[in-house]
Amino acid sequence: MALNPQRTIDELKALRELTGDENGAQRVAFTDTWLKARAFLKEKLDALPVSQHMDAAGNHWATLQGDSDRVLIIGGHLDSVPNGGWLDGCLNVLAGLEVMRHLNEQYSGRPPVTLKLVDWADEEGARFGRSLYGSSAAGGNIDIAEMQKLRDRDGVSLEEALNRVGVTLADAPKARAELRNAAAYLELHIEQGPVLEGLGLPLGAVLGTVGVERHTVTFHGQAAHSGSTPMNVRKDAFRAAGQFAQEIYTIAERHGGVCTIGSCKTLPGIVTSVVETCEITLDQRHLDAGKLAAMWQGAQEAAKRFADEGNCTVTFGDLWHIEPIPFHPELIDACEASIRETAGTAYRLPSGPLHDAAEVARSGVPTVMLFVQSLRGISHNKIEDTREEHLIQCVEALDRLAGKTVAWVQSRA
Amino acid sequence: MALNPQRTIDELKALRELTGDENGAQRVAFTDTWLKARAFLKEKLDALPVSQHMDAAGNHWATLQGDSDRVLIIGGHLDSVPNGGWLDGCLNVLAGLEVMRHLNEQYSGRPPVTLKLVDWADEEGARFGRSLYGSSAAGGNIDIAEMQKLRDRDGVSLEEALNRVGVTLADAPKARAELRNAAAYLELHIEQGPVLEGLGLPLGAVLGTVGVERHTVTFHGQAAHSGSTPMNVRKDAFRAAGQFAQEIYTIAERHGGVCTIGSCKTLPGIVTSVVETCEITLDQRHLDAGKLAAMWQGAQEAAKRFADEGNCTVTFGDLWHIEPIPFHPELIDACEASIRETAGTAYRLPSGPLHDAAEVARSGVPTVMLFVQSLRGISHNKIEDTREEHLIQCVEALDRLAGKTVAWVQSRA
Repeated sequence: MALNPQRTIDELKALRELTGDENGAQRVAFTDTWLKARAFLKEKLDALPVSQHMDAAGNHWATLQGDSDRVLIIGGHLDSVPNGGWLDGCLNVLAGLEVMRHLNEQYSGRPPVTLKLVDWADEEGARFGRSLYGSSAAGGNIDIAEMQKLRDRDGVSLEEALNRVGVTLADAPKARAELRNAAAYLELHIEQGPVLEGLGLPLGAVLGTVGVERHTVTFHGQAAHSGSTPMNVRKDAFRAAGQFAQEIYTIAERHGGVCTIGSCKTLPGIVTSVVETCEITLDQRHLDAGKLAAMWQGAQEAAKRFADEGNCTVTFGDLWHIEPIPFHPELIDACEASIRETAGTAYRLPSGPLHDAAEVARSGVPTVMLFVQSLRGISHNKIEDTREEHLIQCVEALDRLAGKTVAWVQSRA
Repeated sequence: MALNPQRTIDELKALRELTGDENGAQRVAFTDTWLKARAFLKEKLDALPVSQHMDAAGNHWATLQGDSDRVLIIGGHLDSVPNGGWLDGCLNVLAGLEVMRHLNEQYSGRPPVTLKLVDWADEEGARFGRSLYGSSAAGGNIDIAEMQKLRDRDGVSLEEALNRVGVTLADAPKARAELRNAAAYLELHIEQGPVLEGLGLPLGAVLGTVGVERHTVTFHGQAAHSGSTPMNVRKDAFRAAGQFAQEIYTIAERHGGVCTIGSCKTLPGIVTSVVETCEITLDQRHLDAGKLAAMWQGAQEAAKRFADEGNCTVTFGDLWHIEPIPFHPELIDACEASIRETAGTAYRLPSGPLHDAAEVARSGVPTVMLFVQSLRGISHNKIEDTREEHLIQCVEALDRLAGKTVAWVQSRA
């Protein structure tokens, strides 16, 4: 029996039918609809000679024992945001299911290394505001005391929501055991951005998830009457912010990352006054920790320079920070080779959003992700979509990548 | 009896005592406190051989008949904003009173031209939202039907407030008659801006009141995720606005006016998205109508250029417009000469704020204003202030200007 990527598309549509409505996917983690999606997956896996279990954190695992205990894991997440798309997360699981079927067939039920398919619990964090719950528990990056404080908008705690599906939050760190023999981790995902579509390419090998520096930058000038204040004595906080808005493009280009000013607030903010205070938000992302640090350093220097030049001052505030998480270079090569064999042309790109793969990678498991083109770069919305020919190709590429990774894991034994 | 500028300072302090409280001046037009200020003025004027009357609009006039019916008018306004300063408006009236005394003395009660002192009604428009009421009635620039709609925050109409002080709103346009023989109009005012203080000068000759073009400028780009959108495909509305914020300085410098971006709003305005919509306000002012129009034209062209360059679009909205009102060149010369004789150094500057003088000038009466330095450029506030030595100098300069203007009016007979 050959790989059947069309079956993955059919299963995605069946899952959409089962767990979506006119507003999109409704597989929010720990809800009945999410349980329905899991039952759908379990039933499909029951046709394979795999053992299934839910780990201490609530992640669902299917294991096809191989000659070696060393494990190749393919992962994804069935959970969605409310009113989500039909691909985000479940494509990864259902494509992994198809690849498991193919590998099981190829190796007549006994592959040289053990294969696992995992459905991570609550990747989205849509209900409790903490994404990557299940994978971070398995990766050993979870603070139970913090998690115990989490409540949804109705006041239900994460702990209560987990109890309902048979998980004790305090036990979640025990999921760490699941990665004990993990030799490689693969994850397919829709890009959720416009890069591949812009290049006219179906697939990309992901270099890692970018690090983020997120800050407020506040320029302080002086309010002054628009009619009676000559231009050359003004201390115009908005002017300094405007100069800075150009400079972040230079900084991003110099270092090869991205910088975004997402919001701007002006005080007093009236038509007849020079702006006294201008607060903007700055979001900077890079795959390289050193370059990310250099971008933030460059931004601070530029902001101070523009403030000085305009007789203003500038202050900075911290909003959020995360380190970049690079994927494994040999697996990136394997991913690129799989893409080239499938689609002719390969491309490497970093991931702006975080994924479960980031938690697995930073726990030390060699990891790579495969991106498939997103139409219009739109996700977390019912109009999220990918061309069917690209869905076919991504299942084929994941299958090739899994095959190469089995060999790679064997070679490292 | 010589000119006694110290008496003006003493009278300003007496008026402050009579009509102010711990929050500042409270001479809001048509209130009892304002009537108290008018009674104070009338009593002072009663000591001179002048006739006094209130015109059809509620302006108070004191007339010293001269050999000619041609009239030199000195004006100001006793009304203030709530919690106002001790100088705005009443300095003009009380300095004019002192100059009247001096001219009366010089010419032994019979000057060669008729002299009038006017206290304009409701210059500030603080209660009914329409400034320059009394002077615009006298200047012939009043729309009674519009004025009849005006109400204060308690629902009292302007019409009712005027009735209370003996004025019938419908008769206000008859005040036009007061300017029939007007040959020149002089007005002293605190600068209400930082220019003279910045230059270390006490006094300035005012070139006119600037015209204003006030618009919204809205850049339209596209929201896109801060992590997954490469810099070179962004349609960043804030970047275009930031470029525009620099360009207005070039535009202002090129034409010799002022341009101000006072507020900026960003949508969606979140840290993780490129700005889709950026709306700013643009206030442009110039003393020359052609240059004002060129500044607005230049602003529109620049905004379109930056929008184009950034793959954005731009739209414009009207907020407000007023034509510039230039003062009389020969009276500006006379004012400058008076300042030079008083303080050694003269300076010419436009007025950003409007004044009663603008209404008189645009009715066709040769007009000039004299500015005295404001400390910190602050007005409409109890901390509004001017150094006493500068107050002395401004009364002296107004007196010199009045003397020169009497001769000028005679010379044009």
